[in-house]
Amino acid sequence: MISTAQALADGVLAGDVRKASRLMRLIDDLAPVATEALKLIFPKTGRAWIIGITGSPGAGKSTLTDRLITAYRAQGKTVGVIAVDPTSPFTGGAILGDRIRMQGHATDPGVFIRSLATRGNLGGLSRATGDCLRVMDAMGRDVIIVETVGVGQDEIDIAQLAHTTVVVLVPGMGDDIQAIKAGILEVADVFVVNKADLDGADRVVRELRANLELRHAIKAPAMDHDTYHRMVRAKAEGTAPVAPEGPIEWEPPIQKVISAKGTGIDELVAAVASHQKHLVDTGEKAKREQTRAMTQFLTLLRDRLLRAGLERLERERGNLTDVAQRIAERKADPYVLADEIALTVR
Amino acid sequence: MISTAQALADGVLAGDVRKASRLMRLIDDLAPVATEALKLIFPKTGRAWIIGITGSPGAGKSTLTDRLITAYRAQGKTVGVIAVDPTSPFTGGAILGDRIRMQGHATDPGVFIRSLATRGNLGGLSRATGDCLRVMDAMGRDVIIVETVGVGQDEIDIAQLAHTTVVVLVPGMGDDIQAIKAGILEVADVFVVNKADLDGADRVVRELRANLELRHAIKAPAMDHDTYHRMVRAKAEGTAPVAPEGPIEWEPPIQKVISAKGTGIDELVAAVASHQKHLVDTGEKAKREQTRAMTQFLTLLRDRLLRAGLERLERERGNLTDVAQRIAERKADPYVLADEIALTVR
Repeated sequence: MISTAQALADGVLAGDVRKASRLMRLIDDLAPVATEALKLIFPKTGRAWIIGITGSPGAGKSTLTDRLITAYRAQGKTVGVIAVDPTSPFTGGAILGDRIRMQGHATDPGVFIRSLATRGNLGGLSRATGDCLRVMDAMGRDVIIVETVGVGQDEIDIAQLAHTTVVVLVPGMGDDIQAIKAGILEVADVFVVNKADLDGADRVVRELRANLELRHAIKAPAMDHDTYHRMVRAKAEGTAPVAPEGPIEWEPPIQKVISAKGTGIDELVAAVASHQKHLVDTGEKAKREQTRAMTQFLTLLRDRLLRAGLERLERERGNLTDVAQRIAERKADPYVLADEIALTVR
Repeated sequence: MISTAQALADGVLAGDVRKASRLMRLIDDLAPVATEALKLIFPKTGRAWIIGITGSPGAGKSTLTDRLITAYRAQGKTVGVIAVDPTSPFTGGAILGDRIRMQGHATDPGVFIRSLATRGNLGGLSRATGDCLRVMDAMGRDVIIVETVGVGQDEIDIAQLAHTTVVVLVPGMGDDIQAIKAGILEVADVFVVNKADLDGADRVVRELRANLELRHAIKAPAMDHDTYHRMVRAKAEGTAPVAPEGPIEWEPPIQKVISAKGTGIDELVAAVASHQKHLVDTGEKAKREQTRAMTQFLTLLRDRLLRAGLERLERERGNLTDVAQRIAERKADPYVLADEIALTVR
């Protein structure tokens, strides 16, 4: 299949789904022509509103995404979905996208869904996500939903690619809020308490609210973990008088949703729209665009540098497996080797 | 504070805790002298047995680590602990290490505990973890425990730094096994079902066992997610006749533990020892050393290259924030910039 960068870019800019799919595959394959096409489409990007959806596994994010697609389609908006799925090599393959696809959008040309699975362990996933986001943006999709599983650093990186980050919680996940403390709560623009018909939903809402109030109250990050959680609990039970201080920039709304029934979806769409309006009105949007640009650029740079570095290493020192073997036997020094290659950049 | 690389290395090799702490701080600060010291100690590393402990937040890993420390100390072994803690910037600070420290090992010179928190979003955590592992190894610690929170790619990378990876599960975490499918199950050498006095512990054990049997049965990773989980469930209920195939390399034992009471800890220590014996006897240890060396080298290389690349970028193009701003305004092209820098490596 011969595809010139220009033909790919023209196709994508015309909204051609086949060309876009092909470009995304080429991105996945690290084909040089993909980079050239990305350069051509880059100036035309920046129109889409990007919604990140993240939260623990089992929080019902796929069904929620499905409902959001339906809601945005009803508004006449075109939708792109990138399902980032760090599926284990054992269970195999990317599945989130399939799950959403099966739910009835397969024949709607206004919905374009793409799954991205983990490729190796070198952070390539964040880079590929950024690239694919740009393709969908250049296609003219009005709304792009990026769905991720998990609470790791990759997910936080990916959350930074979004304009509006929706964090999905669900009752009964062990320690509730504490269970997903790893940086995810802080990136939320909108909270969803999904499966809100289950026992414990109100407790999750209360703890979230307490957490948000504390966020205002705590200026310096000097509190130890136990004190912090004691305060959150006390606050949830209404016993600790912790007053919010200073102006509130954006108060992340907490939306109860029952995805399976569609309950709360319209309100969620409204919350996202109101966050969008907030970002635009306050000039925060420009700031967030800068953060997004920096995150995307850094992941891109890291990826390109590592690939170039490994090429150089293999050319000069033999293949990576042999190098690793020599390091394991203490016959080569990883610090010396890494410095040697990194020095070429200086 | 003036510390030459040689003085730091000599101190570490003599087991000096102050010098080791200083070197780890210098590693954290990315000080050039740290790299020089790491080069000096590197040939003396490779003696310690490294145990990775990972699993969902709330699984009780800190208490488990505490119990393991006590058990290894009772065997007369010295212990190092690295608590990798992607703590949110909001709650602040590294906490796992403190939690373990508080549990009574603070005055034992045979126990050296160090917390590592997330520094930025560029994968620096894995690199720092590898460096600190080497410091503890060079100090002569017999056993080093690396404890991580979460199920993201960072955690999987860090699991690859261990000789024996212990995955901790706990009853009642939502969808149990399905909830932590993201690659963690596959890296386990030993499973711990912690809080085994809670309801549902046996169900977790059953599902794990079914999962392990399926792992033997499935050769090609071609099964879709739903089928896979249906098979796991069926197997757990004893209805699906899925026969294991081929020779069993290492069957990860499933150990029930009640950390709070110390129940099952001796058996866990025995399971780790038997895994160690297995790796040594079968020659798998050498293979694993190679994997460890490769993971460490790649994280190191990625880190060094990015730092060098950013230095070059800021020298030639101005500071990163301004560059990001120009990218956000579509006045600069991230692909062009990244290629420009990466080309210097070629």
